[in-house]
Amino acid sequence: MRERRELELKPIGVIHSPYKNRGNTTHQGYRSEQISQIEVFREFEEGLQDIEGFSHIIVIYWFHKSQGYHLLVKTPWDDIPHGLFATRSPHRPCPLGLTVVELLARENNILKVKGLDAIDGTPLLDIKPYIPEVDGRSTVKPGWLEGKLRVERC
Amino acid sequence: MRERRELELKPIGVIHSPYKNRGNTTHQGYRSEQISQIEVFREFEEGLQDIEGFSHIIVIYWFHKSQGYHLLVKTPWDDIPHGLFATRSPHRPCPLGLTVVELLARENNILKVKGLDAIDGTPLLDIKPYIPEVDGRSTVKPGWLEGKLRVERC
Repeated sequence: MRERRELELKPIGVIHSPYKNRGNTTHQGYRSEQISQIEVFREFEEGLQDIEGFSHIIVIYWFHKSQGYHLLVKTPWDDIPHGLFATRSPHRPCPLGLTVVELLARENNILKVKGLDAIDGTPLLDIKPYIPEVDGRSTVKPGWLEGKLRVERC
Repeated sequence: MRERRELELKPIGVIHSPYKNRGNTTHQGYRSEQISQIEVFREFEEGLQDIEGFSHIIVIYWFHKSQGYHLLVKTPWDDIPHGLFATRSPHRPCPLGLTVVELLARENNILKVKGLDAIDGTPLLDIKPYIPEVDGRSTVKPGWLEGKLRVERC
């Protein structure tokens, strides 16, 4: 049995959103049009320099309302249980959320973004620039989700 | 002063790669062609069900060789320091790495992937299916990286 060492994180900010609880959020898999504010704590503000040049950023956050998980899960998309890691369920062993969002504006330590489906008060862990050459793929097999999602790409 | 509560994570696996230290890896921003093996610990194997239907997955891991960080960083792409969160530097307050990789094969709890530029022994935190409708963007402003990356999209 391999030791599973604990790793510690401290949030770098907090997400302010119109979603007051999980039931209000969009289902992962569709893009939200909602506007949220990402508050980066003042001590990290300098690290945002030049972020405003990017139209899209990757936001990594902590699913703070997640409690436990199952390795097989049913989703809103079909009645068949799938392996947790083949889904975007928020209930995961490491409750890390990830969303690519549109960066609308920055005002000092506050980022105004579109498309972030996180609950109000969600702890922010990291922000990375979205780089299409690195993060984007166009020729993709979408597994069991084939034909189940119909949204416009932008 | 807001309290920055500590959050605890336990790895769900470990990455086996040809990169023995950071100097051997590709610079973030170019795609590696290297093959790596992702070992998901046996207790989580059931959560991989149906993952093999996806051609691409998002791998989230812990930059275990990262020690400290600076909020302004120089990168290999130019001589101008940029805000840390406008870069993909591995030295971050929350040392979380994220790579979209091609899933070549699964054998039980082992995933064979292409394009993962993580060091051998890197703790694995999460795996998510890559869903182009959710994760991909084609119309993007790449900030200070404009014109600096030239790689083929696949």
